[in-house]
Amino acid sequence: MSWNNKNVSHDGVEERGFELQVNKQTIPGVYWTPSDKKADRLVLLGHGGSTHKKVDYIENLAFAFSNRGIAAMAIDGPGHGERAKGGATDDPDSFAKVWRAGGGNDGMLADWKAALDFIEAEEGARPTGWWGLSMGTMMGLPVTATDSRIRIALLGLMGTWGPNKDDLTRLASEVTCPVRFLVQWDDEIVPRDACLELYDALGTRKKTLHGNPGKHQQVPEFEVDGSVDYLDRYLRS
Amino acid sequence: MSWNNKNVSHDGVEERGFELQVNKQTIPGVYWTPSDKKADRLVLLGHGGSTHKKVDYIENLAFAFSNRGIAAMAIDGPGHGERAKGGATDDPDSFAKVWRAGGGNDGMLADWKAALDFIEAEEGARPTGWWGLSMGTMMGLPVTATDSRIRIALLGLMGTWGPNKDDLTRLASEVTCPVRFLVQWDDEIVPRDACLELYDALGTRKKTLHGNPGKHQQVPEFEVDGSVDYLDRYLRS
Repeated sequence: MSWNNKNVSHDGVEERGFELQVNKQTIPGVYWTPSDKKADRLVLLGHGGSTHKKVDYIENLAFAFSNRGIAAMAIDGPGHGERAKGGATDDPDSFAKVWRAGGGNDGMLADWKAALDFIEAEEGARPTGWWGLSMGTMMGLPVTATDSRIRIALLGLMGTWGPNKDDLTRLASEVTCPVRFLVQWDDEIVPRDACLELYDALGTRKKTLHGNPGKHQQVPEFEVDGSVDYLDRYLRS
Repeated sequence: MSWNNKNVSHDGVEERGFELQVNKQTIPGVYWTPSDKKADRLVLLGHGGSTHKKVDYIENLAFAFSNRGIAAMAIDGPGHGERAKGGATDDPDSFAKVWRAGGGNDGMLADWKAALDFIEAEEGARPTGWWGLSMGTMMGLPVTATDSRIRIALLGLMGTWGPNKDDLTRLASEVTCPVRFLVQWDDEIVPRDACLELYDALGTRKKTLHGNPGKHQQVPEFEVDGSVDYLDRYLRS
């Protein structure tokens, strides 16, 4: 459990790498924080399938949060990024395989718990939210349901579907914090009805669904901007 | 076509009544504008079934818009408010009857066109939007589809349902301006699937759906506030 030497600072944001040992696996992570002040809130960023902890849109979000005084943290999911080991992760069979290789739902939960524990030990506990779509919801919904440190979550592009479908459906009912849930109306990967079913399953009454035309990866820019506003506003209060 | 003497001013908002003669019917309306400055935008407010042009939530919206420098206008729908003549309007049969008595879809369109013509003749043409849920969408979707002066619309709580179902479904495909569409997930009056179907039918690509738990009349306050932001932001640009 330690920071590595991969530190860079640009555009008012300091980016620091870290590595965790969890269940004999090495979990690489990254932490973003404003260069010039102490962040008083934290958002965990869950990347999508076949991407990684520093893919463009995740880094853009990290900068957007940092610019509002909110720290951000991401780790590579099982079989992704520095944990990929050359395995393809964009077809469903390979995806299920790497998910299982990562310890399944329990392994994924252990990774994120260790990462949040590490950041809290280093930087202090702060109001914390989750942002994650698609595979970022496969990871984020279970984390949100089981870790009471998560106070609010931006989820979506996921349904009663995929290798942890049963976990997702079961844990959705245990979510009690506010959730905004995004659905792409013409999603060619996760069928719309499966997404609506997962939204239905969410136990919290403080849930709201935003549906937009377009395919899986065509979330409108205004909706991404709105998601940053949503977490910012709630974590401030 | 004239202002009546029902003028009041309070909390920075001037409220003026007016009456129109359309197809031998008298259409009563109300216009709200900031007391201290010229409004540079306009929102048409369509009330819900069994309510009227000055029901609490419509008046609250009119004040919210006025406080942002946006004028608002509402008329009584067919068989509602001062056009009620004692008829019950909250059961589906009576509702369909008063809708037909008002001239059906064409009569309703003529009413709103006359009202907007009157306000533009008196106050000048300005960027204009529509706000209307439930029966406010039964009126507003056809108006939005056929009157190019409407640049943006907040619609919802309505589906492929009700006395002008066929008109709604047909006209939805002709809407080209941005639409935010609200759905109450546990709507006991207009079934959710019928609402999703009407959202699907909307021809514009600039559409976004917001779904929230609760019954027909339980639209969350944050969603109402957000709807004012939505029209305000768009009409400003």
